[in-house]
Amino acid sequence: MAEASTSRPLAASSVPRWDLEHEVVVVGHGVAGGAAAIEAARAGADVVVLERMTRGGGATALSTGITYFGGGTEIQTACGFRDSPEDMHAYLRLAAGEQADPERVRLYCEGSLEHFRWFRELGVEFNPTFLDDKVTHPFGTECLTFSGNEDAWPERELARPVPRGHKPAREGEAGGYLMEAVLRGTAESGARVVNECRALRLVQAADGRVVGVVARRERERIAVKARRAVVLATGGFIMNREMVAKHAPHLLQCNYRVGTPGDDGSGIRMGMGAGGDAINMGEGLVLNAYYPPSSHLKGVLVDRNGQRFVNEDAYLGRTSDAILRKADGRAFLVVDDELYGQTQAFHKLAAVEESFEALEKALAIPAGALVRTLEVYNESAARGEDPLFHKAPRYLRPLSAPPFAALDCSTSNSIFGVFTLGGLSVRATGEVLGPDGDPVPGLYAAGRCTAGLPREGRSYASGLSIGDASFFGRLAGRRAAQLAPWD
Amino acid sequence: MAEASTSRPLAASSVPRWDLEHEVVVVGHGVAGGAAAIEAARAGADVVVLERMTRGGGATALSTGITYFGGGTEIQTACGFRDSPEDMHAYLRLAAGEQADPERVRLYCEGSLEHFRWFRELGVEFNPTFLDDKVTHPFGTECLTFSGNEDAWPERELARPVPRGHKPAREGEAGGYLMEAVLRGTAESGARVVNECRALRLVQAADGRVVGVVARRERERIAVKARRAVVLATGGFIMNREMVAKHAPHLLQCNYRVGTPGDDGSGIRMGMGAGGDAINMGEGLVLNAYYPPSSHLKGVLVDRNGQRFVNEDAYLGRTSDAILRKADGRAFLVVDDELYGQTQAFHKLAAVEESFEALEKALAIPAGALVRTLEVYNESAARGEDPLFHKAPRYLRPLSAPPFAALDCSTSNSIFGVFTLGGLSVRATGEVLGPDGDPVPGLYAAGRCTAGLPREGRSYASGLSIGDASFFGRLAGRRAAQLAPWD
Repeated sequence: MAEASTSRPLAASSVPRWDLEHEVVVVGHGVAGGAAAIEAARAGADVVVLERMTRGGGATALSTGITYFGGGTEIQTACGFRDSPEDMHAYLRLAAGEQADPERVRLYCEGSLEHFRWFRELGVEFNPTFLDDKVTHPFGTECLTFSGNEDAWPERELARPVPRGHKPAREGEAGGYLMEAVLRGTAESGARVVNECRALRLVQAADGRVVGVVARRERERIAVKARRAVVLATGGFIMNREMVAKHAPHLLQCNYRVGTPGDDGSGIRMGMGAGGDAINMGEGLVLNAYYPPSSHLKGVLVDRNGQRFVNEDAYLGRTSDAILRKADGRAFLVVDDELYGQTQAFHKLAAVEESFEALEKALAIPAGALVRTLEVYNESAARGEDPLFHKAPRYLRPLSAPPFAALDCSTSNSIFGVFTLGGLSVRATGEVLGPDGDPVPGLYAAGRCTAGLPREGRSYASGLSIGDASFFGRLAGRRAAQLAPWD
Repeated sequence: MAEASTSRPLAASSVPRWDLEHEVVVVGHGVAGGAAAIEAARAGADVVVLERMTRGGGATALSTGITYFGGGTEIQTACGFRDSPEDMHAYLRLAAGEQADPERVRLYCEGSLEHFRWFRELGVEFNPTFLDDKVTHPFGTECLTFSGNEDAWPERELARPVPRGHKPAREGEAGGYLMEAVLRGTAESGARVVNECRALRLVQAADGRVVGVVARRERERIAVKARRAVVLATGGFIMNREMVAKHAPHLLQCNYRVGTPGDDGSGIRMGMGAGGDAINMGEGLVLNAYYPPSSHLKGVLVDRNGQRFVNEDAYLGRTSDAILRKADGRAFLVVDDELYGQTQAFHKLAAVEESFEALEKALAIPAGALVRTLEVYNESAARGEDPLFHKAPRYLRPLSAPPFAALDCSTSNSIFGVFTLGGLSVRATGEVLGPDGDPVPGLYAAGRCTAGLPREGRSYASGLSIGDASFFGRLAGRRAAQLAPWD
C-alpha cells in the first residue's frame, strides 16, 4: 500500500530516532536530483538520494533527451553555426517567458558551455551533425536541431536564429541513455542511492529549519536526517489531477500527461507545508504535434470559424497553446494531397474533399469563411508572404493539389501532451523562498518541482526542462553542500 | 510608517500578553468581513473586527453596489421576470466558471432569496424597476439588469435568460450606500470595530490551531486573542504587483487596478503561512468597457489582423479576456457614424475614415483582411444572423453610415480594469484548507482573499463578488461562532 505524502512537516522533536543520517538529502533521482547529488558529493558532502521508484530516471528517462545548450558548443561550431552567450541570451529571455527570472536566464547562458562539457564528461556523447528538419522526436543520431521558436516569427526578428537543441548520440528516445550517464555519475560521485524509498514529509526544527525527511522504504517508515540540507527534486504535478484543477485548470483539457507517476506534486506540497511559496502554477507546456511530416507546416491551421490564429511553423508549444486559448480547443490543419502524411500522433482526418467549399461544408464551418481564409492564404503564399501571421517563406506554398484534407487538432479528438511549469519559488541558487521572499532554511529545490527557467509553454523550446533541471540542480547541490550543519 | 505583514505565523508561546481578547476576530471590514461579523455576533459570539483603514467599506464601497440575487426576488417578479433557484443554478454553474465549486453554487442559489432579504433587513433599498440597457455603471436608481452573459451566446441557449443584477436604490455608484448599511449592521450586532488596526501576522498554537492575530493599531503593536476563530476577509491581491507577477502575470497588462490599497494579498499570505493553500491564483476579472453607449454593441470588434474573435455583446469580462488572450491585447471596435458615442472609459479613436478600405489602411491591417471581415459581417447582419459568433439579433445591423471609426481597445491605449479571483482554498462554510485538503484549525476566510464562487473572468457577471463575499462571509461568521473555544 502506498502511503500518501503530506504537506505538513513533522516537528524534529517528534522524531524518535534517525534511521539514516547524511549531510545532504536529495529527494528524487531524475536529472535534477542526479545533478544535485553529483555536485554536492563533489563538493565534499556526504549525500543520500531517495528515489521512490525502483530506479532513478524521472521524466527525463522517458524523453528524447534533447537538451538546450548554446553559446558556441563544439557541435554548433562543427555544424557551421556561430553562437555566443549574448545571442543565446537574446533568444532565451524570450523563450523563458514574460515572467522569466533574469538571473536564471543570465546564469544559464553564461554557464552553458561548461554545462555541456559537464554532460560530456559524464559520458554523454553528441554527434557533430545537424538535423535540418522540423521534428519533435528525432529518430536518428543527429544532434543539433532548431528545437523551439528560434527560426519562427517573431523570435527570428528579435534574436539571431541559431539551433541549440542537442540530442545525445543514440537512436530513438535518447533520454534513457542520458539518464544512465547521470545515474552512473551519481554512483561514482560517492553519493548513496536508496531506491524504492518515498519521501512522505519533511522534518522541521522549531526555528523553521528543514532538518530531514520522513520516508517509506519498502514497508518501513524511516527518518532521514539532513545535517546540512534537503534538496527537493521530485518533478512536477501533472499526474495530480486535483492539483491541476486547483492551479492550472485549463490543462485538464489535455489528454496525455507527460511524466512519471512520481510527478504528483508531492515535493511541491511538502515544500509549501514547510513555508515555501508555489508560483507560476497556472502555466504548462501543451503539445499537439501535427508534424512531422514537416510538410504539414505548409498547411493552414484554422479554428471552428475557418479563421487562422497562429503561424503554423511556430514551435508546437505555441501552436498547441493557441489551439487551446485562441481556438477554444477546436482546430483543423488543412493540407492538400501533396502535403499530407500520417503524423506520429495519428491525427484523425475530419474530412477529405475535392474543393475548399466541400471541405468547409464537411467541417460545418460557416459558409464562405474557410474558403475565404484559404483563398487569401493561397494568394499571399504564392507571393511568398504571410501578412497575417508571418510564417517563414520556406513553409509558404498555395494549397493546390486536391483532395484537401482536414486533420482534427481538437482537444477532444487528438493527442494533447502536457506537463506543468509551476512549482516552488526558488532562487537561482536553489534556496526555496516563502511568500514574503525569505528563504526556508535548509530547503533547496530544482527541476520541475520549481518555477524554473522556462515559465511559459507558448515560448518554450525543447531541451529547456532537462537543461534547467540539470543546470540549477547542480547549483542547488553545490549550495546545499556549503550550508553550515545544524547540529 | 506602515509595518509590513508577514506570512510567517507567530507561535502562541511567544505572545507576551494578549491586548485584546474576543471569541471571533474578523480581519477586514468590507462586505465579507461585515457579513461575517454580523452573523457571528448574532450567533452569540463576542466579535471584534480589525480594519486597517480609518473606516470599513473595502472594495465594495468603491463599486456600483450591484449584487447578484435570484430565484424569484420581489424585484424580479415586480419587473415581470420569472426566476427559480433551478433556473438560477443552470446559469450560475456556467457563470462560476469551469472550476466552480458545485457546493458553493448550490448553496448560493438555494439561499439567494434569504440572502436578498438579509440585505433589505439591513436597510438596503431596491426599486422594483428594470433597466433595459447594457450598461456597466448604471447612473440611475433602477434596480434590475442583465449583469452578465445571461442573454448572450452561448449561455442564452443553455439557461433561461433572466436578469439578476440588483442595484441598490441610489444614483451613481451605490456600493458606498450598501456598505453603510453593512457597517451599521455590524455596529448594531454588538460586534466591536477597531479601525486603523492592521493585521500583521497570525498567531498559531503548537498544535497548528490559529488562536489570534498580531496587529498594529495606530503606532502600537497589539496581540488579539481569538478564543474561537479568526476570519480573514482582507480582499484580493491586485494591489500587490509582486504577487500578481508570481501568480497571474497576464493581468500585469491591465492598467487600472480595481480595489483599495488593502487589496495587497496580506490575508492570503498570512493564511498560506498558517498552512492554507492558495488556489485559482491565475484567474482575474478584466474589464475594458467599450459600452455604454450600448449602440457600440452593434459594432465589430477585430484583432490586428482584422479578424473577429468574440461576440461583441457578451459581458465585458468575456470580451476583455478575449482581447487579452485571443487578440494578444490589440483590438479595435469598428462602428459607423450612427453608432458612435463617447465611452465612459474614453476610448481613443485609432482612425476615422470614409471607407472600410481606408480604415483598414489607417489601422495597418493586412490588405483586404478588415474589408472582408466587415463585408461578411454586413451581409449576415442584414439577414439578422451572426454565424461566426452568434451575437444577439438586437445588436446586428450592417455598418453602413460613414464615416467609420475604430475605437482603440488595446491594452496599451485604453483602460483595462482588473481584480483577482484567486485566493485561499476554503470550504463553502469558510474553513481554510491546506494543500492536502485538511482544514487549518481555527482559521476561516471569505471574500476575494479566497477562491470563492466566481472562478473565471470570462464567465463572470457583475454582482457575483459582492454576492459571494456577503453570502459566504455570513456562513463563515456563523461557523466561526460555533467552533469550540481553545482555552
